[in-house]
Amino acid sequence: MSRIVRFHKIGGPEVLCVDEVSDIYPGPNEVRINVKAIGLNRAEVMLREGIYHEKPKFPSRLGYEAAGVIDLVGDDVSCWKVGDIVSTIPSFSLSQTNQGVYGESAIVPAEVLSKYPSCLTPIQGAAIWMQYLTAYGALVSYGNLKSGQTVIVTAASSSVGIAAIQLVTLLGAEVIAVTRNNIKKPPLYKLGAQHVIVTEEEDLIDEVKKITNGRGADLAFDPIAGPALNLICNSMANHGKIFEYGALYPGNTNYPLMPMLARSLSIIGYQVLDFVLDSKKLNPAKEFIVEQIESGELDPIIDSVFPLDKIQDAHRYMESNKQLGKIVVTT
Amino acid sequence: MSRIVRFHKIGGPEVLCVDEVSDIYPGPNEVRINVKAIGLNRAEVMLREGIYHEKPKFPSRLGYEAAGVIDLVGDDVSCWKVGDIVSTIPSFSLSQTNQGVYGESAIVPAEVLSKYPSCLTPIQGAAIWMQYLTAYGALVSYGNLKSGQTVIVTAASSSVGIAAIQLVTLLGAEVIAVTRNNIKKPPLYKLGAQHVIVTEEEDLIDEVKKITNGRGADLAFDPIAGPALNLICNSMANHGKIFEYGALYPGNTNYPLMPMLARSLSIIGYQVLDFVLDSKKLNPAKEFIVEQIESGELDPIIDSVFPLDKIQDAHRYMESNKQLGKIVVTT
Repeated sequence: MSRIVRFHKIGGPEVLCVDEVSDIYPGPNEVRINVKAIGLNRAEVMLREGIYHEKPKFPSRLGYEAAGVIDLVGDDVSCWKVGDIVSTIPSFSLSQTNQGVYGESAIVPAEVLSKYPSCLTPIQGAAIWMQYLTAYGALVSYGNLKSGQTVIVTAASSSVGIAAIQLVTLLGAEVIAVTRNNIKKPPLYKLGAQHVIVTEEEDLIDEVKKITNGRGADLAFDPIAGPALNLICNSMANHGKIFEYGALYPGNTNYPLMPMLARSLSIIGYQVLDFVLDSKKLNPAKEFIVEQIESGELDPIIDSVFPLDKIQDAHRYMESNKQLGKIVVTT
Repeated sequence: MSRIVRFHKIGGPEVLCVDEVSDIYPGPNEVRINVKAIGLNRAEVMLREGIYHEKPKFPSRLGYEAAGVIDLVGDDVSCWKVGDIVSTIPSFSLSQTNQGVYGESAIVPAEVLSKYPSCLTPIQGAAIWMQYLTAYGALVSYGNLKSGQTVIVTAASSSVGIAAIQLVTLLGAEVIAVTRNNIKKPPLYKLGAQHVIVTEEEDLIDEVKKITNGRGADLAFDPIAGPALNLICNSMANHGKIFEYGALYPGNTNYPLMPMLARSLSIIGYQVLDFVLDSKKLNPAKEFIVEQIESGELDPIIDSVFPLDKIQDAHRYMESNKQLGKIVVTT
């Protein structure tokens, strides 16, 4: 038996149960992991709420990111063995039966596993792939980020936002971190953002114009959409690219046609799940991330660690938006 | 004195006046053209209505496309001489004083002039640059159109739509022409569209899926936006690119976030005025267009020709959407 987080209906954090579930065994090309740490992501909140692009099948597991030790390998798995220390790359479907890594034990396709840098703890190992691959795929692989450019990063205090701040800075470009209230301003500067705009107090368009001497930003990296998308569009340089990688705003978003036309902007729908399925793009990204973590240039920031039986609190905390970095659950 | 079309206030076609205006003389780097034919574009309707991204200064001239003969050259113009037969590339500002080519005489910057293929009449010469450059810039230069791909072309019976049909077909790709009612279905097939979808009678998403064996279209080329943008997004293949090059829908457009994320789509705001300012992109486009017109592969389609004093009727006709190809006015 293993303690597995599941939910049996759509709802708030209270629908998450820690169920005692019979052991399951990996099928062909699958492995079973003895999970040590789980990295939480917004995608799981959206799946739980029934607003993710995948729909849960009940009882539904959830969770993309875990670090742990392989304790069983299925048939036809040649590249991994029992005892290997691994973490999961978010390239599998959450709606597939029995997938989802929230729990003491998880079955995942062998191809989604990766070693993580040995300098990291399992807690850190569960906090790297989603955030750094999401930022790298959009900004470097698709966005062709260059030294000297300026990047608007919204939801800057999220784990992906902080990963983007680190990555953009490392590549010699400037970050304009965007956050709602001023509580997070000092820590965002401390994390390396060259500029922080607090949207409750400052005008995004004016501030970006000042920072960029009227030119506007080259790239934007936004998981929210909503009314701010129009402000972002009006803060971009000609031929700017805006990566939309989430749908956190609960209402409709107006399509900002006029600034799109006037500035020849591109809005690009981006999902890390799509990026990581392209091994020609994924492999150099993984190599870069491992190298930069090992040299200390990228540094996964852990906000807090919850035990597995406090999974409801962990989700509540994620939804409070008080965190600065990754929320991790240990088993 | 010359007869020049001007408008003195925002409004419908009735605000267009044919005014007797004193002769004007080209400044440095400008030339004066004795205009023979004027190609009409939606941009001018929008300028007249006050909904263009540039605002008119009254009394305002208008018009991007003319063919004629140079009758005066200003200082510092070395590449053109009196008597040269030319047409204008739409790379200048309509809101600048005295610019706009609707009239017997027009002053334009020397660098916006081009020779047009000698096999063409002035009427045809006024009907090539806007339509072919608009289609080429989006689909070939930015969209990287490849043989075997599928392209959705909306407003397919407009001059730019027909230019896109010709260009896509010429490059070995397939066109799905989209039009509102079935009157234009037979002529669009005749013009080379492999597929025509009539949106009043057929479901865009279903039809595109059928045509592409479920894959979806690679590119879309749309000057409308509005509710159809969501349908277009749901008709695209993964990583499809949608070029929005106008704002013909009068209301707001909902940003289609979910299909954008699910299919990793890009929506690209595109203006030919931006494209033609980049000479590295413009020059090969011009060469290609001239070559293909001379060899008969591209064939400017003229819907109708109005005399200058019927300019109000010409605008009314453009707004009726009954045309199939270019509306031209002769002086």
